[in-house]
Amino acid sequence: MKLTDIFWPFRSDMNYIERELDRAIDTKEPVLHKAASHLLKAGGKRIRPVFVLLGGKFGNYDIERLKYVAVPLELIHAASLVHDDVIDDAELRRGKITVKSKWDNRIAMYTGDYIFARALTLVTELPNPQIHKILSNTIVEVCLGEIEQIRDLNNWDQNLRRYLRRIKRKTALLMAISCQLGAIATDASKDVVHRLYAYGYNAGMAFQITDDILDFIGDEKKLGKPAGSDLKQGNITLPALYAYHKSQNAAAFRVLAEENRTDEMIRFIREGECINEAQKLADWYLMRAAAALEGLPDNRNKDALLKIAHFFGERQS
Amino acid sequence: MKLTDIFWPFRSDMNYIERELDRAIDTKEPVLHKAASHLLKAGGKRIRPVFVLLGGKFGNYDIERLKYVAVPLELIHAASLVHDDVIDDAELRRGKITVKSKWDNRIAMYTGDYIFARALTLVTELPNPQIHKILSNTIVEVCLGEIEQIRDLNNWDQNLRRYLRRIKRKTALLMAISCQLGAIATDASKDVVHRLYAYGYNAGMAFQITDDILDFIGDEKKLGKPAGSDLKQGNITLPALYAYHKSQNAAAFRVLAEENRTDEMIRFIREGECINEAQKLADWYLMRAAAALEGLPDNRNKDALLKIAHFFGERQS
Repeated sequence: MKLTDIFWPFRSDMNYIERELDRAIDTKEPVLHKAASHLLKAGGKRIRPVFVLLGGKFGNYDIERLKYVAVPLELIHAASLVHDDVIDDAELRRGKITVKSKWDNRIAMYTGDYIFARALTLVTELPNPQIHKILSNTIVEVCLGEIEQIRDLNNWDQNLRRYLRRIKRKTALLMAISCQLGAIATDASKDVVHRLYAYGYNAGMAFQITDDILDFIGDEKKLGKPAGSDLKQGNITLPALYAYHKSQNAAAFRVLAEENRTDEMIRFIREGECINEAQKLADWYLMRAAAALEGLPDNRNKDALLKIAHFFGERQS
Repeated sequence: MKLTDIFWPFRSDMNYIERELDRAIDTKEPVLHKAASHLLKAGGKRIRPVFVLLGGKFGNYDIERLKYVAVPLELIHAASLVHDDVIDDAELRRGKITVKSKWDNRIAMYTGDYIFARALTLVTELPNPQIHKILSNTIVEVCLGEIEQIRDLNNWDQNLRRYLRRIKRKTALLMAISCQLGAIATDASKDVVHRLYAYGYNAGMAFQITDDILDFIGDEKKLGKPAGSDLKQGNITLPALYAYHKSQNAAAFRVLAEENRTDEMIRFIREGECINEAQKLADWYLMRAAAALEGLPDNRNKDALLKIAHFFGERQS
């Protein structure tokens, strides 16, 4: 199953969103336009716009309103990526050269600021202040997540709860509000809005846990980065936390951690039960995502959401 | 004349805004709180909040509404400063150590993002979508100005118009909308809104030109940076543009520019007519700022705006 197959029924509206994304970053400032284009063209799966449109299918679907949520959410996601690349000193993202290494850190920083600001301009086209409020509160949370991630670098003392809060802020919230705002922008009922939020949140948690697993066991070519990159950068994710706190040979792993023997830690995690245990938690979130949809009418839109959740669990890159 | 003397009649509301600024950046994340606090405590003149409050005096003054414009505008200004410091690799700002050098670039970047996002959360407390739209459009312009500034580094070919557009985006717009949004948030008439915008824009242009003059001739201690810092960083401002394109010895100056003899360029600018010519343009903007206020009722608020414009022209740091 490919994501494009799931999106097939919405391809015309997705193409429209794609054109609107291009239009959103259009500017006479040549460097900025090139950098922002490069960033958006580098792709990504456009999960957030898809969630917005699917959320809108459970209300009074109107692409002319939904675009003012779908485009900003994708732009905010892109802006956060380009700032992350500055911080991580990343040369590659999704196998493609990053803005910060094609241009420089200054351009990457301001490209992020610019895209972020453009996102906000677009959302003000909708008169609904609740949407503005949810969006800006989420951005605050995303920033807090970024700062937490820095604070928790190389911190083996963190517990599972702390990791979960971090990935909620970093990933799950933006997916949750994508579904939620699609429903709110089309005047769906409160119950529907609530269920879609819960779906997006749980699917997003599973998405990030899978991401953290793939960082250890995924195909380096498909991921566009070497295995264990997170750990090498000091970013301690679920498989590593499990190895340190819960695994059968936790004592041995702690020695490796203390002596900072990264390659051996990566091998330990890849070969032991850590990946399986992390997978179990991802599956649990996927089950909760499916459960959140139970009260919604059975139709091809609900089916698409279920397939996306399934895809999140199965993806290889 | 000191700014605090001009603000004296509004000191109680200004103290309230100060407390609200503190509250806005309050967070349990310790590093973030310290960095954001450090940034705000480093001071600044709080010109933008003062403009908001004074703008509100020409409508139905209500501090409970105005704070949702005054605090965000100051926060957006602070966020742009902390990002500038990352870019400029600045160790000091206003004579105090910067966030990026007290912590690091990553913290500075995310502190900026966080403060920026908090600003947006606050403004969503106001139900008026026009305010959100003006604010987010301005942020886009400010970002474009930042990118332009990078593009124009060491570019002697730029004309006066280009410089003016850059300082408009960098400084004058945010001051213009401070006055404007104070008036809009308190339901002032369109004519009043328009006049206050024009005042803020012209005062802001004069403010930035004076800043650019002070960079050459100001007291290094008061400014907290060595003379000619802009030029040393490749940022070509009005006095330097005048020296290159219009001054009596432009040919001699061009030789210095071509050979990148920065110290000699700085001496040339400090000693020649360039500073005077730049001062003339700043005075012209100040005259226009005063003219914009002519249609407003004569009262102590108008008087305060006139005094602030006067202060902008006379300030030494």
